[in-house]
Amino acid sequence: MESLRNPNGANSSPLTPLGFLERAATVYADSPALVYNDLTYTWSDTFRRCLQLASSISRLGIVKGDVVSVLAPNIPATYELHFAATMAGAVINTINTRLDARTVSILLRHSESKLVFVDYQLIRAIQEAISLLPGVCAHPQLVLITDDGPPSLPMDHFVDTYERMVESGDNCFDWVRPESDWDPLTLNYTSGTTSSPKGVVHSHRGTFIVAVDSLLEWGVPKQPVCLWTLPMFHANGWSYVWGMAAVGATNVCLRKFDASAMYSAIRNHKVTHMCGAPVVLNMLSTGKKLDHTVNIMTAGAPPPAAVLLRTESLGFEVTHGYGLTETGGLVIACSWKREWNLLPATDRARLKARQGVRTIGMTAVDVVDPDSGVSVSRDGLTQGEIVLRGGCLMLGYLKDPESTSKCIRNRWFYTGDVGVMHPDGYLEIKDRSKDVIISGGENLSSVEVESVLYSHPAVNEAAVVGRPDEFWGETPCAFVSLKDNGGKPLPTAEEIMGFCKGKLPGYMVPKSVVLKEELPKTSTGKIQKYVLREIAKSMGFAVKSRI
Amino acid sequence: MESLRNPNGANSSPLTPLGFLERAATVYADSPALVYNDLTYTWSDTFRRCLQLASSISRLGIVKGDVVSVLAPNIPATYELHFAATMAGAVINTINTRLDARTVSILLRHSESKLVFVDYQLIRAIQEAISLLPGVCAHPQLVLITDDGPPSLPMDHFVDTYERMVESGDNCFDWVRPESDWDPLTLNYTSGTTSSPKGVVHSHRGTFIVAVDSLLEWGVPKQPVCLWTLPMFHANGWSYVWGMAAVGATNVCLRKFDASAMYSAIRNHKVTHMCGAPVVLNMLSTGKKLDHTVNIMTAGAPPPAAVLLRTESLGFEVTHGYGLTETGGLVIACSWKREWNLLPATDRARLKARQGVRTIGMTAVDVVDPDSGVSVSRDGLTQGEIVLRGGCLMLGYLKDPESTSKCIRNRWFYTGDVGVMHPDGYLEIKDRSKDVIISGGENLSSVEVESVLYSHPAVNEAAVVGRPDEFWGETPCAFVSLKDNGGKPLPTAEEIMGFCKGKLPGYMVPKSVVLKEELPKTSTGKIQKYVLREIAKSMGFAVKSRI
Repeated sequence: MESLRNPNGANSSPLTPLGFLERAATVYADSPALVYNDLTYTWSDTFRRCLQLASSISRLGIVKGDVVSVLAPNIPATYELHFAATMAGAVINTINTRLDARTVSILLRHSESKLVFVDYQLIRAIQEAISLLPGVCAHPQLVLITDDGPPSLPMDHFVDTYERMVESGDNCFDWVRPESDWDPLTLNYTSGTTSSPKGVVHSHRGTFIVAVDSLLEWGVPKQPVCLWTLPMFHANGWSYVWGMAAVGATNVCLRKFDASAMYSAIRNHKVTHMCGAPVVLNMLSTGKKLDHTVNIMTAGAPPPAAVLLRTESLGFEVTHGYGLTETGGLVIACSWKREWNLLPATDRARLKARQGVRTIGMTAVDVVDPDSGVSVSRDGLTQGEIVLRGGCLMLGYLKDPESTSKCIRNRWFYTGDVGVMHPDGYLEIKDRSKDVIISGGENLSSVEVESVLYSHPAVNEAAVVGRPDEFWGETPCAFVSLKDNGGKPLPTAEEIMGFCKGKLPGYMVPKSVVLKEELPKTSTGKIQKYVLREIAKSMGFAVKSRI
Repeated sequence: MESLRNPNGANSSPLTPLGFLERAATVYADSPALVYNDLTYTWSDTFRRCLQLASSISRLGIVKGDVVSVLAPNIPATYELHFAATMAGAVINTINTRLDARTVSILLRHSESKLVFVDYQLIRAIQEAISLLPGVCAHPQLVLITDDGPPSLPMDHFVDTYERMVESGDNCFDWVRPESDWDPLTLNYTSGTTSSPKGVVHSHRGTFIVAVDSLLEWGVPKQPVCLWTLPMFHANGWSYVWGMAAVGATNVCLRKFDASAMYSAIRNHKVTHMCGAPVVLNMLSTGKKLDHTVNIMTAGAPPPAAVLLRTESLGFEVTHGYGLTETGGLVIACSWKREWNLLPATDRARLKARQGVRTIGMTAVDVVDPDSGVSVSRDGLTQGEIVLRGGCLMLGYLKDPESTSKCIRNRWFYTGDVGVMHPDGYLEIKDRSKDVIISGGENLSSVEVESVLYSHPAVNEAAVVGRPDEFWGETPCAFVSLKDNGGKPLPTAEEIMGFCKGKLPGYMVPKSVVLKEELPKTSTGKIQKYVLREIAKSMGFAVKSRI
């Protein structure tokens, strides 16, 4: 038996999600893969287009392991590039379109991107980002995605357009297979993107595992119709960019959306599946009852009970999961028990707001004392840090072994999130990682906002926490104490906000600034953020804002 | 990027299906896991029972890598032992209950089984098998599964009963996790079991992959009701023994079954899923229309169009797949295209009888010229050998590196099955491995039957081929030429059959024997089996037989 404990030629072929596309081109050849405005591509079209694009990417000199970045909304090009760039051997890095030029420039430099695909609406942002790159560093080649833009667009700085690259490519291109399970496939930057960018690298193997796992957990049938309300740049659409090719889905793309766009897409395309942070559920809550069931997966922040109830009453079947960029998709889900259907609606919502249990692809999940590493009691009360173990965990942070080894230790990944374990084995997050605020599905680092605040000459101390917001979940709220401003008048709260505006992406700018004589501190001089969180909570909801 | 191409502590935990059970005990705690006669075990019962049994198995001295065998029908014990034995660190070997004592004895010796769980109805068979073991070889410990047997059974030779081992075990047992992806998990003997037994060994990783893949391919939802009409000893129920724990199924067990038992189980338990060789579909074909849809997966032999049509007309949704013991489950399936629903029934049946395309867990499937290894034309006409590559392929044959390297070469597994590739990328088997006859879902080796025939003193030449059978698919048909019998009268066809009876399992005994002056041969003296196959075909169906 011992002599057989080794892989062989037939079974050692690396696990990868890339083969999903090739297979879809056979099984779902004439079925729609991508639907966008008046455009439909079948799976056989999509495979052919991706092969051609991959060959053109190779022709631009991209080789195995190079980073290819994408700065574009949820349009067909973004979907196709997930396969095309990686089939050329590259690692794909989809950049959050909500970031400001300065941050984009930092990411391009950190990732050493060789090639960037840019949507026509983000030309200015990329040009500014490129101009901010230091002269010594090699500038990436840029490709323009003209998409539904005007017929003539300025081509300065761009080596080609997306469609010309597709058209001029070779549809017999021999795509690049991974050599090992552990070959990197994706790079996704997570919060903490300015001072020290954290680039999460996932392998082919990890991505395969999370992709099939996420399909099973959600019970996605073959040939679903998926409406892309979740940005594909969020952990590759929580892995569903890959998974939807495995099941031959119709991917309905939207450049931007509001409630009315979502409802008409749901109606026109008979959408069966969609994902989104609770803010998307919020947006849907003004709608009318659906004429067919739509499955919606929510994650990123615990959905408030009222939002769950309202969404379900409209005909949405809500599933609640939990994952991080570092897990590549959902790894904990509130697996529903049949008997819970008999409970009153509020109890159901309370149960569904819990994060739940590990998915079948995960090896282990626990809540532990962060110092001792010992599991906390399963009492639903004792708090501890959520730790994860499983094949889909990231390879590590790019060029940051220190941060990597800080969170991967004792054979666990330490999430930084605080939770409890209920007696029934379901886990619930009680407090997220101390320095993260989740606003409209975007994780933002309070430390980053604070570092901008501290750059104001009159700011003495600054601390940023989340303030509850009916629509966004929460928004950044800054507590600031001032010091002498060199004789000049002290700034107002509004002036402090204005100061932040040019220096941070819009969603990171504090929506409330509270000026205080002094910030509450521990005996050792540490600012007591939990006190500030309580104050922010007691301030109630900020004035309702809209996307 | 290069420095990250390695596993780390959090993501290198081996892939294994064993964790499915632990998770099911949390998620599906109070839902039925096993239903059998008047007995129901929930998933929390099942996990507890398996832990207890695993601890008792350990106490008997079983350590990591030891082989634990099971000789029992589809009863709860067989299901539980898949998890309990392997959670004790053992490799599980389920033995085909249709084998004769001589073959069982060969398998026990070849596998070096340390412990054998035996159903009370198979006491005589195991005692005979043990008595046939050479004195020099260590005899396995035997455990009696009393199940629904009479209250008092002879305990000679048995160290304990199954239920006493469960009851006396420790439900806090720390079950044995695999140390590596490639640790062996299962051992399954495939045809060719007498002279040179071929013991297929699968790893934890391979089994995890095929289990999740088979769930996705079949689109198995959570909490299905699975009727066990497929023997669990056939590739661990085509991997569904593991998969059903992943989705928290209700496993309905049957000790033995006929059409009426199946139909009452379907009705009483609202069965949603079942598997079986085409012979099971045959058995069902006499029934009345179902009041709910039952999904049935068939494989093992191509289902005849008439059988498909009849089964579907009764309300069964038939899926057709292909796999081998060496793949641990189905790796090719006739993935259905929506547009095919518009075709006439006979065209649908013809399309469904094709084996199909690789599942998403497989890396590659092809039909190649066996000599050159080059892919055959995709014309649906050119025949070649079916080759497979993917993570679920076996580790190899136990103690048989020669056979292993014969079928695993050029990074492919060579199936021995002959097929064609259709222009649409769907594969169809045209002729199975030359020496295999498939009778009622059992693969049997013509070479083995021939070797018994040759042991008759009057047999000059013998060749065994499959003869079409309306019920069994095919049955073994022997062509024999005789020589001088030392002055004694030459044997009749019936006497030849009688001669085989004591020497082969029942299903391997030729159901027809044709005496010929001489067998057709090539110029080099090789018996032309294809000529004999044609003759057998022209003989028409054998007299209809029943299980």
